[in-house]
Amino acid sequence: MSKSNLPPSGMRDFLPAEKNLRQYVMNVIREEYMINGFTEIETSEIENLSNLINSDGGDNTKMLFKILKRGEKLKLNEIPDSENALTDLALRFDLTLPLSRFYANNRNDLPAVFKAIQMGNVFRAERPQKGRYRSFVQCDVDVIGDPTNLTEIELINTVVRTISRLGLDNLVVKINDRRVLKGYVTAAGFSEDQFTDIAITLDKLDKIGKDGIVKELESKNYPAENIEKLLKISDEIARDGLASVKKYSAEGYANLKTVIDVTSAVQDLAEIKYDHKLVRGMGYYTSSIFEIYYGEGGLAIGGGGRYDEMVGKLSGVDAPACGFSIGYERLIDILLEKNFTVPGGTRLALFYQDGDDLTEVMKQSIALRQTYSIVSVFLKKKKFGKQVDRIKNEGFDAFAIFGPDIEIKDFN
Amino acid sequence: MSKSNLPPSGMRDFLPAEKNLRQYVMNVIREEYMINGFTEIETSEIENLSNLINSDGGDNTKMLFKILKRGEKLKLNEIPDSENALTDLALRFDLTLPLSRFYANNRNDLPAVFKAIQMGNVFRAERPQKGRYRSFVQCDVDVIGDPTNLTEIELINTVVRTISRLGLDNLVVKINDRRVLKGYVTAAGFSEDQFTDIAITLDKLDKIGKDGIVKELESKNYPAENIEKLLKISDEIARDGLASVKKYSAEGYANLKTVIDVTSAVQDLAEIKYDHKLVRGMGYYTSSIFEIYYGEGGLAIGGGGRYDEMVGKLSGVDAPACGFSIGYERLIDILLEKNFTVPGGTRLALFYQDGDDLTEVMKQSIALRQTYSIVSVFLKKKKFGKQVDRIKNEGFDAFAIFGPDIEIKDFN
Repeated sequence: MSKSNLPPSGMRDFLPAEKNLRQYVMNVIREEYMINGFTEIETSEIENLSNLINSDGGDNTKMLFKILKRGEKLKLNEIPDSENALTDLALRFDLTLPLSRFYANNRNDLPAVFKAIQMGNVFRAERPQKGRYRSFVQCDVDVIGDPTNLTEIELINTVVRTISRLGLDNLVVKINDRRVLKGYVTAAGFSEDQFTDIAITLDKLDKIGKDGIVKELESKNYPAENIEKLLKISDEIARDGLASVKKYSAEGYANLKTVIDVTSAVQDLAEIKYDHKLVRGMGYYTSSIFEIYYGEGGLAIGGGGRYDEMVGKLSGVDAPACGFSIGYERLIDILLEKNFTVPGGTRLALFYQDGDDLTEVMKQSIALRQTYSIVSVFLKKKKFGKQVDRIKNEGFDAFAIFGPDIEIKDFN
Repeated sequence: MSKSNLPPSGMRDFLPAEKNLRQYVMNVIREEYMINGFTEIETSEIENLSNLINSDGGDNTKMLFKILKRGEKLKLNEIPDSENALTDLALRFDLTLPLSRFYANNRNDLPAVFKAIQMGNVFRAERPQKGRYRSFVQCDVDVIGDPTNLTEIELINTVVRTISRLGLDNLVVKINDRRVLKGYVTAAGFSEDQFTDIAITLDKLDKIGKDGIVKELESKNYPAENIEKLLKISDEIARDGLASVKKYSAEGYANLKTVIDVTSAVQDLAEIKYDHKLVRGMGYYTSSIFEIYYGEGGLAIGGGGRYDEMVGKLSGVDAPACGFSIGYERLIDILLEKNFTVPGGTRLALFYQDGDDLTEVMKQSIALRQTYSIVSVFLKKKKFGKQVDRIKNEGFDAFAIFGPDIEIKDFN
């Protein structure tokens, strides 16, 4: 195999301009999350394999990067009876499982209502394709320990303000409640046990249309009568709006009404709307679910919901919990497409020549840093015009040649 | 095996207070590096195993976290002929190898003199022990493409200013040149081939003393005459100082003289001194080597040097290179020991009560964020005194109870 200087398949390196954007966006997200009362934690990128496997993580547990056992633990003289005989650790696939483990381990040192920020790389051994990476950043806010819907309100408000700060307007937050969904699925004649399966199909309504829904549910052998009723209810809700769902779940309705009314009243940066078709894939959500879109027809750039049973299930410590995760990579893609300009200081290139007194060169560069936020020192080359052009292309704002009567030349 | 909520052995989670310190220190390092003209890049945490193994990484290549092959590539029906039949990727053990690979891959898009920042986690499957972790942060600055010793001067100046900004004074930078070392080792009668081995022993002079050096070199069967001469030269240099090493390497002497004179002249934040005993472990250094200490007798909190041949060897693209890496974890340990206070805004806790109008509560919290940099909203509990105590212990500066005539109570 020839030696490659590329990163491994599905992994990425970042050049200075993109890294600068990524770092800036991370800083804005972190800062706005903090302003809103959240505090940051960090968890290990490597987890015990058993924790990840027993995590209810669905398909993600099939995409683990597993780490080979080391030293005496690795037995190479026999045929392994399973993959897991060779491995004991794996890279995390999300930040929610590590948060639950962290909370269970540290709850005595954490506030009763713990408002957590977590930002970092997660890893999934998916088939690499355009826009899908095997290592990517997630930026999560979660509240553990508060059963009230102030949590949903604060999470939505925080995420909307964060994304707005990056210059994205025309934001739409869609919200639903699993209890309402379950209410009208059972009202259509399906059993509670069938709910999760029905929800997976219903999630595709926008994509495959009503005919597609009928086809898929029929192929799963559900009664035609129930399917018809389900679509009828869906049409009714689409026509009559939120007020019409009270009969399917009074609690769910009250939750949606409060969250929509309050979040709408306190900001005009996003439209908050009930979407009876919103389902979200994960099985662990218990009530509120939400997604944020850039433009009505756009792709989701974040999502979350309430998962009141997950922390207890994973960690043995019961605690209500609700989270919102920004789809950082999609956000970056949007900003790159919009040619987003990272605000920054003025960059000056200071050129010195062979034979100059280096002490004086350094002193001048240090003095210039009082005025210019970034000063880079370079040896002046023979083809100086070409060198200046390169510096300009790299994003420098000005240059100067070292000397007692220094003259700054601005590119602008 | 019982379920553990701890991170895996040698890995760490960070609670809010420590994470806040870590993030603050990262930000200071990044900002000061940037002010001094460096730009940040990011490389993949996962590397192709073959790149890491063929890297000249010494013992680090024995401490790899190797990642199991996935899907069809993993053959479980036969006895593996080697570990490497089971694995194709591994976690990086440092940031220098990824930088070299990155540079080789992207050099056409990079400046002729590339001043790089890299900050991130690296992984080593060492035996876990106090103060030694299996995942830890490195913060590197490197200059690729500049053969002049302005590079050494700028790297030392940048790192000194960075660490000073964190309130650590009494810094000492020790510097040596491999060419001088080699010059006096060969002057003592050893061959050039023996240099690396002799250097490893010489590195221990401070630890094991002259008698220890003699013992160790004798046990390696080096001639007693050479050993005696080596120690005599070492004594002479200790007595006569830098001026006396010109005869062992004129180039090395000139380099040391310039770097020491210039760095000393442009800042008074650290003492820069020649240390003829400084060796540094890595074999890839070609001339300058340096370390920075907190206090004369303290531990090194950073180190680096020039490695002009490494980039070419690893990547096939020749380029002079020099780097300085801050020992971030040791720096954090020192700051924790000093009870370093992270500068930050004012944190206000806003309490609301069951039945309060949530829209008004949210509006008040948003308004308060104009004055207080961080505002957290909490439901007021029955045992309010206890709740206020907790908030105070968590580091809040003030609290208030929601209402039209809000009254802020400062803790200070």
